[in-house]
Amino acid sequence: MRVIDIHSHFFPKNWENLAKKFGGEDWPWLRHSTQKCNDYNKAMLMQGCREFRPIYAACWDANVRLEEMDRDGVDQQIISATPILFAYERPVKQALYCAQLFNDAALEICVQGQERLFALAQVPLQDLDASCQEVSRAKANGHVGVQIGNHVGLKNMDDEAVLDFLQHCSDQDIPVFVHPWDMMAQERTANYMMGWTVGMPAETQLSIVSMILGGGFDRLSKNLKICFAHGGGSFAFLLGRLENAWIHRDIARGKSQHPPSHYLDRFYLDSAVFDHDALDLLVKKMGSDRLMFGSDYPFPLGEQPMGHLVDTSPSLDRHSKQQILAENAAHFFTL
Amino acid sequence: MRVIDIHSHFFPKNWENLAKKFGGEDWPWLRHSTQKCNDYNKAMLMQGCREFRPIYAACWDANVRLEEMDRDGVDQQIISATPILFAYERPVKQALYCAQLFNDAALEICVQGQERLFALAQVPLQDLDASCQEVSRAKANGHVGVQIGNHVGLKNMDDEAVLDFLQHCSDQDIPVFVHPWDMMAQERTANYMMGWTVGMPAETQLSIVSMILGGGFDRLSKNLKICFAHGGGSFAFLLGRLENAWIHRDIARGKSQHPPSHYLDRFYLDSAVFDHDALDLLVKKMGSDRLMFGSDYPFPLGEQPMGHLVDTSPSLDRHSKQQILAENAAHFFTL
Repeated sequence: MRVIDIHSHFFPKNWENLAKKFGGEDWPWLRHSTQKCNDYNKAMLMQGCREFRPIYAACWDANVRLEEMDRDGVDQQIISATPILFAYERPVKQALYCAQLFNDAALEICVQGQERLFALAQVPLQDLDASCQEVSRAKANGHVGVQIGNHVGLKNMDDEAVLDFLQHCSDQDIPVFVHPWDMMAQERTANYMMGWTVGMPAETQLSIVSMILGGGFDRLSKNLKICFAHGGGSFAFLLGRLENAWIHRDIARGKSQHPPSHYLDRFYLDSAVFDHDALDLLVKKMGSDRLMFGSDYPFPLGEQPMGHLVDTSPSLDRHSKQQILAENAAHFFTL
Repeated sequence: MRVIDIHSHFFPKNWENLAKKFGGEDWPWLRHSTQKCNDYNKAMLMQGCREFRPIYAACWDANVRLEEMDRDGVDQQIISATPILFAYERPVKQALYCAQLFNDAALEICVQGQERLFALAQVPLQDLDASCQEVSRAKANGHVGVQIGNHVGLKNMDDEAVLDFLQHCSDQDIPVFVHPWDMMAQERTANYMMGWTVGMPAETQLSIVSMILGGGFDRLSKNLKICFAHGGGSFAFLLGRLENAWIHRDIARGKSQHPPSHYLDRFYLDSAVFDHDALDLLVKKMGSDRLMFGSDYPFPLGEQPMGHLVDTSPSLDRHSKQQILAENAAHFFTL
């Protein structure tokens, strides 16, 4: 069975020192191990002086990645930036430079990927024109889509400029992958990685809800290909609550012309939910033609081994598994 | 089939003017209609000068409530305060006064309720001693349990004083109902009632996650009866993500001795999820012996008609429905 993983991240081994170039704090960088022994393939992803996450060579080395894809039976993989690279809060010139640097680095990894690795671009989403130009440049250079963070500061996905960017992507047939970042309520979720287990899924749900209720899907072309990460966060489970509010309370309707359930055929979700019952709920709500296998590889919170959840599902039939593991992605990204 | 609704709210028709008594802003009050015609049973719940929510006589009139319970086939109902009454951010003396005022008012409604209405107390949770004293006073006066907000400012449910209060409740066999309030990320959820559809379920999930990972269930007596509102927010659907993080990342484990799934038999959830598939997932994750029917009546985002979701479930058998609709609540609240 063909397997395409649409949600994985990369981080190039070396690149220009952006803190030195632009000044400012918290630019991400890699602190590679200085030991010769067994740590040559490990590094610490840093944000300024702060340790952000331990990573290993799969992040930057296509050969390691291909070996592990072989191990887990993954044929092709879409790689995208680590969200702390988005730089939406920085001056647009810096964010654009950063995006171009990493977009070009991503393509270098893909070249080493023997036609099994494909990249999503990043863009300086705080600026509509720069984002449209960069995503078009990236597509021309070989990127198969674009990854965006799910908000720009206080602006959710009902923001006019974000919707204009999505329409540009639709017009140019560029698929969009939405990843949570810059998580809400950080002062309340600082412990136990709750930023990832509470903040991220709430962010993603907020994105889908704001896009629906903000009238985004009413306004955007039906040709837009858009997919939300981590199974859409908590969206699918909370759809009933959202629908009930829409029906019974005028101010909960926002600008949407239809109730939220009307728009489920307008977007995709990845399968990274780590639980068969949750996956079943996704299939019930979205249909197996609206889900795509995503692992979040090679980060510690990713699926290990990749593809295991869908592959071992006791309730999905072979056709549904094939749709989720590859067919939908092949269509979505034209692979 | 007997039906007990464990999640409903009240608001007494008249009470002391707390803004005048204590000063300070945003004290809640009811602006009753001044028209004689058809609006005598309607009111606007105000927070200071701001319109918070339109409500109607079921909030304060036991007779209206009993009529509507008869209409929907609800035998007994637990009433609890509207969370904007909690006053956890105010001086403890004011919050205690407010709690006592409303706890006594709740019992007056229950007296009119012909042994079909029962009340949960509220406490000034910002102060451990005052909370323990008030909850014990309330129990002695006839309250069948206590409702608490899911956080006190920046303090989640792994807070030492909150856990001490829960232990006090356990020691005195006082059931606890946890309701989300004071929602996170209000600057991002101001539109379309997203505070209720995004913020609230994230709050409740945060409560359960912080209680588990903060070692709360390891430390507290197994006799504690605790139930979280709105089906536990997004907790059940996101359990797989939480469990995966716990397994693969040391800093995601917090202080809990076991993985999160170990603690599912330590708490209850209400059934207010407004969707059969979501309810099915709750039953799969928690078991039908850990769910209790809750309507969120009589607010606009409550279930209409009450009990419809469980009653019409195509997948639950009669025994499971009976457990959820009444048996578990009868045990939990000793009714």
